[in-house]
Amino acid sequence: MKNITIVLFGATGDLAKRKIIPALYRFVEKNKLNNVIVVGAAFDEVTSDQMIDAAQPFVSNGTQELWDFLRSHSYYKKINFNESNDFVGLTDFIKKCEQKHDIVSENRLFYLATGSNFFCSITDNIGKTGLAKHSVVNDVLWHRIVYEKPFGYDSASAHAINECIEKWFDESQIYRIDHYLTKEVVSNIAMIRFTNCVLEPLWSNRYIDQVQIILTESDSIENRGLYYDSFGALRDVVQNHMLELLALVCMEAPEMLTGDFIRAERVKVLEKVRFIDGILGQYEGYQQENYVKKDSMTDTYASLKLAIDTPRWSGVPFYLKTGKCLDKKETVIHIKFKQVDCLLLRGCPTDSNWLTIKIAPDAVFLLTLNAKRPEVMGEVVPVGMEFCHSCIFGLQTPEAYEVLLEEIIRGEQSISVRCDEIEYAWKLIDAIEAQKLPLYAYKKGSLGPQEEQHYKEKHGMRWRI
Amino acid sequence: MKNITIVLFGATGDLAKRKIIPALYRFVEKNKLNNVIVVGAAFDEVTSDQMIDAAQPFVSNGTQELWDFLRSHSYYKKINFNESNDFVGLTDFIKKCEQKHDIVSENRLFYLATGSNFFCSITDNIGKTGLAKHSVVNDVLWHRIVYEKPFGYDSASAHAINECIEKWFDESQIYRIDHYLTKEVVSNIAMIRFTNCVLEPLWSNRYIDQVQIILTESDSIENRGLYYDSFGALRDVVQNHMLELLALVCMEAPEMLTGDFIRAERVKVLEKVRFIDGILGQYEGYQQENYVKKDSMTDTYASLKLAIDTPRWSGVPFYLKTGKCLDKKETVIHIKFKQVDCLLLRGCPTDSNWLTIKIAPDAVFLLTLNAKRPEVMGEVVPVGMEFCHSCIFGLQTPEAYEVLLEEIIRGEQSISVRCDEIEYAWKLIDAIEAQKLPLYAYKKGSLGPQEEQHYKEKHGMRWRI
Repeated sequence: MKNITIVLFGATGDLAKRKIIPALYRFVEKNKLNNVIVVGAAFDEVTSDQMIDAAQPFVSNGTQELWDFLRSHSYYKKINFNESNDFVGLTDFIKKCEQKHDIVSENRLFYLATGSNFFCSITDNIGKTGLAKHSVVNDVLWHRIVYEKPFGYDSASAHAINECIEKWFDESQIYRIDHYLTKEVVSNIAMIRFTNCVLEPLWSNRYIDQVQIILTESDSIENRGLYYDSFGALRDVVQNHMLELLALVCMEAPEMLTGDFIRAERVKVLEKVRFIDGILGQYEGYQQENYVKKDSMTDTYASLKLAIDTPRWSGVPFYLKTGKCLDKKETVIHIKFKQVDCLLLRGCPTDSNWLTIKIAPDAVFLLTLNAKRPEVMGEVVPVGMEFCHSCIFGLQTPEAYEVLLEEIIRGEQSISVRCDEIEYAWKLIDAIEAQKLPLYAYKKGSLGPQEEQHYKEKHGMRWRI
Repeated sequence: MKNITIVLFGATGDLAKRKIIPALYRFVEKNKLNNVIVVGAAFDEVTSDQMIDAAQPFVSNGTQELWDFLRSHSYYKKINFNESNDFVGLTDFIKKCEQKHDIVSENRLFYLATGSNFFCSITDNIGKTGLAKHSVVNDVLWHRIVYEKPFGYDSASAHAINECIEKWFDESQIYRIDHYLTKEVVSNIAMIRFTNCVLEPLWSNRYIDQVQIILTESDSIENRGLYYDSFGALRDVVQNHMLELLALVCMEAPEMLTGDFIRAERVKVLEKVRFIDGILGQYEGYQQENYVKKDSMTDTYASLKLAIDTPRWSGVPFYLKTGKCLDKKETVIHIKFKQVDCLLLRGCPTDSNWLTIKIAPDAVFLLTLNAKRPEVMGEVVPVGMEFCHSCIFGLQTPEAYEVLLEEIIRGEQSISVRCDEIEYAWKLIDAIEAQKLPLYAYKKGSLGPQEEQHYKEKHGMRWRI
């Protein structure tokens, strides 16, 4: 990575200090940055040193020398995102910084770590100043723009942002990011599916009985009430992380496992997702959280049954579950295969085969097979064949945001959500919201609302533990 | 197990003391024998106590009390297997022993732990005395007869024995045993194949590239020269153990995973096995072993390429390898799946998927998949998903001979090789012998004859390690 200016909007925000600046620090540590500068921009009145220092608590084992290096390549300018004049000043400021560091190639990365309500105005203002060139992919000289999630609030607002930003940037320059797409195990899903002869032929409604995608958290919303209360679980994680996991599990084979080939296939899945049933929940005490409305009806739990109307997946139910303040923190995909015809003398397998892809906290692939019960003929017992990604390859694999930044700089678009992809995802959320699903209370640390029992019985399902 | 007389021919032999009597001791230990007596018969002049005591070195952690119990239920009679009159005496002797122990139901198990040259005369003599009734399966009152391997020397001799014994016993009473069929992992092969939706659809020439069956030993023939030199590797292990493994891997789904259903399917595989190519070997120093002819051309190593002419397996090569004095002791089946079409940006998987079934020394199922190489997009690395049968279920699973005796007493015929099955297996050996394959010397502790390199290159194969 060399001769790049990273312009970080929202440089004093939570995401910047918790994720983006720490990722930049790790690049310094790995000696990956060559003549790269960071120009922060936000509403706050801080110095560039203060901007960097705010990230120190989120980096373990940092050294003074490397922090000094990062500081010496960082700048900050206070601006109002809605004020065009401020962007004229910012442009001059950036150019001066670049001159100082002899950054002549003018590669620029605009990173919008702000609320999506600012996406249009910031993009408009960048466009008007001429800081960024509207161009198709160019590996030698490039200008790229990154939008953090959530990208809009529903399909209408996402569409409006898309229309606004497409005036100034080509789709090949735009990165609507979902950091889940850069997790090792998540990028492994497509790899595992399509490079293994023992999985690829099984991957359809012919052999798959159902799929469960579970993303639970034991934490509450903490101090994020202002944001969370107007979004809720469906918008916070279903619309992005969970639907992207669904798309990766269900997509047809792309021409290549890269860039827009993968995105084109993910889009086709999201276009065909259909809501069947669901319930919502809210943990007890949620309305007493800071910045949350006292009569809030925001969902902190969602349990959904979806269908995908494609020949490959027709008839297979997809069960999604997510929530705050549940019994454990876990992100996992369970793929249940159909039962085989029974050939046994004394009783049939009690359990089918399952492929479990654990994404967090551990990265594990687990295949549950039936094997012979020892010392007994004609009886089977489920046994697990496991590959622990994090045990074998270690947990030193880079943080999602490191991968994210590297891939953006490399120009790899598979980690980014395409314009149509994000609108289809929002359309599903719109459809679910339109259902006015019941909202049930649930106890903190529980498995979710007790009323879900009835829903599970209705669909003859139970969550894989 | 109750009210049974076990008549053990060859009671003073190696197999009796190393395997059969120790298995009976374990039954005593597990309190599984209720009014069961053992009547030994052989050429030697020994007491019944001496017969039992000869087995003591082959049982670890035995207690005097339990050995006493086994002795108190054991008898011995010296006989000449070829002498009809001796069987009249044996019959009286057995009946007296049974009376003494109030064994009234007359369940009798005749166990021929002798060379196959005695099979016909012993069976004839048992038949003539009326000790055994010729009858179809009867679970209440039964007479069963067990023949140790090798069952004959070629297809002609096996056929002759079959003709002889079928005069006196129905096929449902006959157990031509191969103790490999009672090994936990071996009986697991069919169980794993047919009770798992993730394996069954893949099990054909559509997805399987090749199969390797490896049964190697690091030991020499030790003091078994007299037997081994007239048999060799092909007859000692290929004809029985290895072809049974092949049959279990390749058979069509039986109606049920039991008894004659499985045997019927194994037969159909062995009927269709065809020899393609092979080489033989003899370890250096073999001709100097005790009881071995100084100019012996007996094979102690065999490497074979076989085909199975069925729709399921047409085109799939089956590579078998066995030998004495090799680098390691191992019994393993490697199933190689075909390569998938390549979808990757930067290079394709270097290795296909393999399912490895380790039978000895450890019982392990290992699936080798491709996964994403950490920190690199678009590259894969092989990873292993393992289920260690012996680690999870412990090594306390019963010895093959315990399972064997229990299953015979239970009347489970899947562990026995059917009359036609054994003749097909011998016919393949006849066909290989007729080829007069080259016999190459190889060093003790090596991987086999160096000349195999040329053979492997010719077939574009290499042994999976």
